[in-house]
Amino acid sequence: MFGRKGKVETSDPVVRKLMDIVGESEVLYKREDLIAYECDGYTMYKGMPRAVVFVQSTQQVSEVVKCLNKEEVPYIARGAGTGLSGGATPLGGEVIISMVKMKRMLHLDLENRKAVVEPGFINLKLTQSISDKGYYYAPDPSSQYACTIGGNVAENSGGAHCLKYGVTTNHILGLEIVLPSGEIVEIGKEGIPDQPGYDLLGLLTGSEGTLGIVTKVTVKVLKNPEGKKTVLAYFDEIDDASQAVSDIIAAGIIPAALEMMDDVAIEGVESAAYPVGHPRDIAAFLLIEVDGIVAGIDDQIEEILTVCKQNNVREVKVAKNEAERALWWANRKMGFGAMGAISPDYLVQDGVIPRTRLPEVLAKIKEIGKKYNLRIANIFHAGDGNLHPLILYDASVPGESERAAKAGSECLKVCADAGGSITGEHGVGIEKAAEMRFIFTDEEIAAQTNIREVFNPKDLLNPGKLFPQPGRCVEVKRAGQNEMQPVP
Amino acid sequence: MFGRKGKVETSDPVVRKLMDIVGESEVLYKREDLIAYECDGYTMYKGMPRAVVFVQSTQQVSEVVKCLNKEEVPYIARGAGTGLSGGATPLGGEVIISMVKMKRMLHLDLENRKAVVEPGFINLKLTQSISDKGYYYAPDPSSQYACTIGGNVAENSGGAHCLKYGVTTNHILGLEIVLPSGEIVEIGKEGIPDQPGYDLLGLLTGSEGTLGIVTKVTVKVLKNPEGKKTVLAYFDEIDDASQAVSDIIAAGIIPAALEMMDDVAIEGVESAAYPVGHPRDIAAFLLIEVDGIVAGIDDQIEEILTVCKQNNVREVKVAKNEAERALWWANRKMGFGAMGAISPDYLVQDGVIPRTRLPEVLAKIKEIGKKYNLRIANIFHAGDGNLHPLILYDASVPGESERAAKAGSECLKVCADAGGSITGEHGVGIEKAAEMRFIFTDEEIAAQTNIREVFNPKDLLNPGKLFPQPGRCVEVKRAGQNEMQPVP
Repeated sequence: MFGRKGKVETSDPVVRKLMDIVGESEVLYKREDLIAYECDGYTMYKGMPRAVVFVQSTQQVSEVVKCLNKEEVPYIARGAGTGLSGGATPLGGEVIISMVKMKRMLHLDLENRKAVVEPGFINLKLTQSISDKGYYYAPDPSSQYACTIGGNVAENSGGAHCLKYGVTTNHILGLEIVLPSGEIVEIGKEGIPDQPGYDLLGLLTGSEGTLGIVTKVTVKVLKNPEGKKTVLAYFDEIDDASQAVSDIIAAGIIPAALEMMDDVAIEGVESAAYPVGHPRDIAAFLLIEVDGIVAGIDDQIEEILTVCKQNNVREVKVAKNEAERALWWANRKMGFGAMGAISPDYLVQDGVIPRTRLPEVLAKIKEIGKKYNLRIANIFHAGDGNLHPLILYDASVPGESERAAKAGSECLKVCADAGGSITGEHGVGIEKAAEMRFIFTDEEIAAQTNIREVFNPKDLLNPGKLFPQPGRCVEVKRAGQNEMQPVP
Repeated sequence: MFGRKGKVETSDPVVRKLMDIVGESEVLYKREDLIAYECDGYTMYKGMPRAVVFVQSTQQVSEVVKCLNKEEVPYIARGAGTGLSGGATPLGGEVIISMVKMKRMLHLDLENRKAVVEPGFINLKLTQSISDKGYYYAPDPSSQYACTIGGNVAENSGGAHCLKYGVTTNHILGLEIVLPSGEIVEIGKEGIPDQPGYDLLGLLTGSEGTLGIVTKVTVKVLKNPEGKKTVLAYFDEIDDASQAVSDIIAAGIIPAALEMMDDVAIEGVESAAYPVGHPRDIAAFLLIEVDGIVAGIDDQIEEILTVCKQNNVREVKVAKNEAERALWWANRKMGFGAMGAISPDYLVQDGVIPRTRLPEVLAKIKEIGKKYNLRIANIFHAGDGNLHPLILYDASVPGESERAAKAGSECLKVCADAGGSITGEHGVGIEKAAEMRFIFTDEEIAAQTNIREVFNPKDLLNPGKLFPQPGRCVEVKRAGQNEMQPVP
């Protein structure tokens, strides 16, 4: 065994250059250390990175990027790796720039309702660190105990409570970005809303790490609502549950959360860590939460109960206390993971449909399950039509992974054909790059890849993500054409 | 006198080609007809267009754009011309593409809360056409009786009620765009929120007509709130009024509107069409509106009254009925126009500041008024720190226009230096292009002009707007450089 200093067992000159920037201890390069970085939460595709480098400052990010740019080595920024579409997964050979050590809160300004954090700051920690003062951060992905704000910006993450309050892009006031040139730019400085010029803040948010690396994030924080109340409603028919969703919104109520779970999903969560005792023979339940001024909440709850009863609800109840409310939510938030209790493997999909097409789309998804002989559970943010079919499969059965992937793609096609979209909050990444053609024409994809080329001209930053690859339009553009043209 | 057909008195070959596309009657080319198009609502700069062409379909827009592109003639899309920063004003020689005849509502889907309109559809008409069914369109610029939805998209327009509900970009679900290549693309199709890929919807909204021409707009419509109540509060000190604004927000209340008007502005509105009888000797009043579920409103009003009293309000009252509420709003919405009653000319500015810096910034604006010997009124959306200094001047006094322009620029510098921005809702246009340097570095401006070049490579679409001109970075880029570089 050697001491570490000066004894690095690598002949990779790029690794040595990265060590010169960040220090030897901050670069992983051995195969056994790299295996953990072969994929993110989307485990169907894996690629071996060339190295992992831990950065601790914006300046270091800039220097690392300049170095990799010069060496023409592709690279990917990675947070906690909880993403569900392979956005932080290497195709093979990329350097992973890990942001997890940039995890400080830099500034908290409750008077102007904002906080400035580094990208490795964990989502849930933000709410935890301000809740005693009566504030919280709204976007709440189910992975919020682990996922980072930087990753949330890359994926424009949502969560159960995004119906009323909006997804990440609605809560980002400013970003500091290292561009693929190594330049550091600030957009949405000081968190003043609606800056003049082009909306680069919106453009960068949700760009899945293909336009720049986020090194600082200014987020909105919200005042805790004065009160909240939560309703659980059991339905014998999916159609009734769906109609209740539409009727609640039509009544002018915007609940903080409006979630649905079907029978297969209920079987999963009732077999996992936080069983509630949901009846096993219902078609679906709705979990509905209303927040705001206390005086207004009771009226809204009354109206929601009435709507449920008008739609043949079997049973409907209001959480008696905070403990019951917390249990209901723990049960719901376990949803994806709970599939592990009833299936060796599962694939989460993430389609969006107009609320009014819900019964029809769920019926088609059931048919897809039959066609591929796979069970499909459905958990979703019903209020905004964001559907998560969970396709249950067993990777040890030959061909079953492939069948699951095909079934997933067909579910997305059904959503797209219903006037919807192929992703609500999980991003495109590697997983759904081909499916972008379900909703975009060649011209529309070219309009986007042309923008990528402005920021990321060598396509070294997170290559192969977000758009169908290899894109001929990129080839055409590289040949020197400058106007936006349809791909020939 | 000649008959019109075949007797067009122009030798301009471009005008003849435009007539071939849209018909002779739909092209203006005589000097006397063009004068009305020399400027928009920002009257300090004027330029003569080459022609005005009225389009009636997306296909016509595409053909007109292809024609002008081929002829290398610059062009500008124009709605009602109510813009306040010269976004639709020619530099001289542009063809103006008037969208006012594309003014149909194409589709209304109240169940999914959206409407599809052509760009020339008038803002207020949208609310009027759905109000009997209990719905409305939220962004309400003071010019809403005349301004078009297409123009609102270009400028990302706001209004008094945007504090709670957000500005135009928060209400746009989809756009059809004709690109400067003449291609037609749809973004945010079918109004499904949070589409995958880059946020082109956000990028186009507020791009001030420099990236493409909007030909169809899908907007969110909202359910009318169950109730609303309106408070008027008179203060002897600006600082007390400012503190009340901060305290209301800090109490967790987000009013639908939270407006402030100072003594000079009050002098104006009390001399105009809808006097309320405001006392003339106060420093400022606040106009505060709360909406939502009726039961919740009363609690919020009580809290607002308490906050006002804690901040030494002289008098505070709640509108007794809808007639009183409507009068208060008519008085407020006359604000800009009312300056005509107390000054021959006025220049509206549009800065944004953090709410907490309000008293300090108002004091500095008062100093600027003294320095230039000009009266300055202040009307503003206090809740979101969007300040409108109205600089009163007399254009017939030699040098006074120039002094007003300088005073306006200094007001924006004060806002930028306070951590704010140079425009909240009126756009940059011609007026504030130079002031973009108050808030953006050369690199940050280059990041934006590089995006413009992707969409608008020949800079024929609305040239000279939004960014400092002539931009050297554009010259450098044209020389073939492809990476994002600081301007040398």
